[in-house]
Amino acid sequence: MPIIGIYADYLLPAHRAQIESTVRAHTNEYQIRYFSTAQEMENGISDCEILYGYYPAAVLKRAECLRWFATASAGVDPFLEDAVYAHPDQVLLTNSAGSYGTTISEHMLMVMLMLLRRMPEYTALTQNREWRNIGAVRSIWGSRITIIGMGDIGTNLARRVKALGAAHVCGVRRTKKPSDPAYDQVLTLAELPEAVKDADIVALCLPATKETNGIFSKEIIDGLSPKTFVVNVGRGSAIDQPALIAALNEGRIAGAALDVMTPEPLPIEDPLYDAANVILTPHISGNMSLGHTCDLNVDMFCRNLKRYFTGEPLHHLVDRSVGY
Amino acid sequence: MPIIGIYADYLLPAHRAQIESTVRAHTNEYQIRYFSTAQEMENGISDCEILYGYYPAAVLKRAECLRWFATASAGVDPFLEDAVYAHPDQVLLTNSAGSYGTTISEHMLMVMLMLLRRMPEYTALTQNREWRNIGAVRSIWGSRITIIGMGDIGTNLARRVKALGAAHVCGVRRTKKPSDPAYDQVLTLAELPEAVKDADIVALCLPATKETNGIFSKEIIDGLSPKTFVVNVGRGSAIDQPALIAALNEGRIAGAALDVMTPEPLPIEDPLYDAANVILTPHISGNMSLGHTCDLNVDMFCRNLKRYFTGEPLHHLVDRSVGY
Repeated sequence: MPIIGIYADYLLPAHRAQIESTVRAHTNEYQIRYFSTAQEMENGISDCEILYGYYPAAVLKRAECLRWFATASAGVDPFLEDAVYAHPDQVLLTNSAGSYGTTISEHMLMVMLMLLRRMPEYTALTQNREWRNIGAVRSIWGSRITIIGMGDIGTNLARRVKALGAAHVCGVRRTKKPSDPAYDQVLTLAELPEAVKDADIVALCLPATKETNGIFSKEIIDGLSPKTFVVNVGRGSAIDQPALIAALNEGRIAGAALDVMTPEPLPIEDPLYDAANVILTPHISGNMSLGHTCDLNVDMFCRNLKRYFTGEPLHHLVDRSVGY
Repeated sequence: MPIIGIYADYLLPAHRAQIESTVRAHTNEYQIRYFSTAQEMENGISDCEILYGYYPAAVLKRAECLRWFATASAGVDPFLEDAVYAHPDQVLLTNSAGSYGTTISEHMLMVMLMLLRRMPEYTALTQNREWRNIGAVRSIWGSRITIIGMGDIGTNLARRVKALGAAHVCGVRRTKKPSDPAYDQVLTLAELPEAVKDADIVALCLPATKETNGIFSKEIIDGLSPKTFVVNVGRGSAIDQPALIAALNEGRIAGAALDVMTPEPLPIEDPLYDAANVILTPHISGNMSLGHTCDLNVDMFCRNLKRYFTGEPLHHLVDRSVGY
């Protein structure tokens, strides 16, 4: 009997019931196996045909029978190389892009407002029990915002900043194609220097691919305006981090908020911790910390399960050669 | 020659030009006098017919010729008593409600997201150079939000949280009347217990009046759900602060973000500084820290100047007996 392995600590009883009823509606030939510890998972994945949830790349090679790996994450950079899998030609990889837009765009709004309104300075002031107005702040209203990466996360952000009165929202993607009306302008990655020039905020929500690796280069960073804030929730590999730190410390950009960085976890001696006007968070903008994300994620898996059993092409299929 | 006194350190040359051309378009009989220091202002207001800007209440009694006091602030609680003025029956008071909605609603969104997403805990974690996911967060998307005070600030907030996907926005005001469509429900201050029950966030943006003094009472606070966050940007006098501190410290509410409190500045020994899960800011959500606020504020004054010179009733007139 083929096996569906599930390693997902965020599942509520309702989520399990939803997965089970989806399976039973289409087949009685599959068994569902839940892993509750890493040890259980490592011991139990060898005969799984389907895997859903969060798995470290290093264990996937054990899954000798794997046909479909449905990762609960949006980013798939650890899962692209053939060497990850026992039988790479047999394995379909799907991601869960589409379930993180709400939570990550709210994180981005939060840190954007914190930077614009100088909240780290006010936090320090209040901790010191001082009472003082430190002066001018800025606003999303009327701002020019450039969003690099126009997937679910970028587009959720675009809609929100437009609703808050951003004056101009520029989206940047690999190739031009019809885009959400929240974007006032769409440029390609090749036009990045033009896209970031004069932005109040540049928000990166790119997957880690060969093409995006280091795309926010020293040259791009050195061309930014002193008024520009940089926000990154995609992957740290997109940014030349030493160049960003230098620009922050020399006041050549206004500030940054990074939920992703290089490496992760960030070592305690890393100079990024001491960079000027930076808000750091430990890669928590997404994941399953918001119930709505879990609901969407399980729902996406169940819709794909149905397609798998009925022989329809899976949604959210990743082209492992392109990287998303 | 009658005199217009202006004490407003936020004025740009363009703002002065706008005020001057508004005056000259209607009359050559008024002189404009700019005060650049408190001393200049105190020495120079005695013969002013019109005053615009920020003035401490204690000096207004010197303005013997005052006919119209156009305060740049939205809150007018220091300016209500007859005793403030040399000739109270002669003085029209206008406020600048309408110029603060953008900046204060963005402040409120920021602190709401910080509370929902546990940002104070993440800030402490990162300052300690730790790297850890601390667990579940919450979202504006899908939340029930109660907004007490449905003026410019409350309504700007209502529109924004609705655009971000709040499930239910309940507005609370003195009396029922037609309201912005961003509100899903409107209740009166008398229905406050019902309005706050089951809210994820209760946001107060009330003026300080006799009616609002202490309206967020111990009884109301003790009836809140443990999931509820309280945000206040109106006046500290609306809240029973010791009851709020007790509810925070005993985990009977989820947290609070206060830009206004009692007294201000908050004394360094005040227990509010040590209350659990509270975000404090020193009454900075509004004021003239955002350029857009200054533009709107000057524009409102100029439109009223025109009405003053042409004998039309002033906009934003305050009923000093009601308090707004």
